[in-house]
Amino acid sequence: MSSGVEWGVHCCLTLAWLEGEGPVSTGRLAAWFDVPTEYLKKQLQALTRAGILESTPGVQGGFALARRPESITLMDVVTALEGADELFRCTEIRQSGVGGLGGGDEFRRPCGVSAAMLRAELAWRRELAAQTIADLMSASPEASAERTRRRYREMSRPLP
Amino acid sequence: MSSGVEWGVHCCLTLAWLEGEGPVSTGRLAAWFDVPTEYLKKQLQALTRAGILESTPGVQGGFALARRPESITLMDVVTALEGADELFRCTEIRQSGVGGLGGGDEFRRPCGVSAAMLRAELAWRRELAAQTIADLMSASPEASAERTRRRYREMSRPLP
Repeated sequence: MSSGVEWGVHCCLTLAWLEGEGPVSTGRLAAWFDVPTEYLKKQLQALTRAGILESTPGVQGGFALARRPESITLMDVVTALEGADELFRCTEIRQSGVGGLGGGDEFRRPCGVSAAMLRAELAWRRELAAQTIADLMSASPEASAERTRRRYREMSRPLP
Repeated sequence: MSSGVEWGVHCCLTLAWLEGEGPVSTGRLAAWFDVPTEYLKKQLQALTRAGILESTPGVQGGFALARRPESITLMDVVTALEGADELFRCTEIRQSGVGGLGGGDEFRRPCGVSAAMLRAELAWRRELAAQTIADLMSASPEASAERTRRRYREMSRPLP
């Protein structure tokens, strides 16, 4: 899985904590996590296309959660950033070589190897879909939310 | 996941069906599934290093299962071919940028994002570990095992 997933989930969690602070710019999020702005922008745009974030244009613009943290699952974030493709891709090699000759009716049923691999993948997806950004908020130390807001306000304060 | 996993699992299943036929060469397995010999060889060597296959050298040499099909799980095959690395890699971005400044004690506990992602991954691994090559044999149509043996004998018969 690309590092974009780590960034994406952390951005959602931080934006959940910063609810009410107005849109947060890509530059600030990039500095927040010390990650490259241009690559982070791609992840934020993908999350926006998926309806997880909403984007406000302009100099005061940036990103905020588009839905309640209870309604954003880890599966939503992973799918937005990595696509919905299976981890295991079945190319039906059971019937492509000389080993498959004469298989006929046997191949009407889905491949057992593929079914077994997908069963495991389903367990992964089910677990990702059962965990939301709100769950991550509850599981975090109380201090993290507070410190995030305090630090963000310091960072956003206009210079005197 | 690379296509090597599909090949690896299918090779194990086919070698389980061909138990008693002697070692099966890389060339025959490659023709069996119509996959490139050189790349397949790498997968077979990795499975051998992991103690899943045993390799017999020489002109009559090739590969056979090194353990009973009941003792080879899909997790074994995936780990042998893809390594044991996590799908999700945590790089601790929570503490690397300005957002992490002053976090101190909060970061003693494992990152909640990483923990949540790993929980899902564990569900995947658990399911892979619960399924063996013997399970794949039982789930396959009876005809597949028979046809595999018949076809392999035809393929191996010396020309008249």
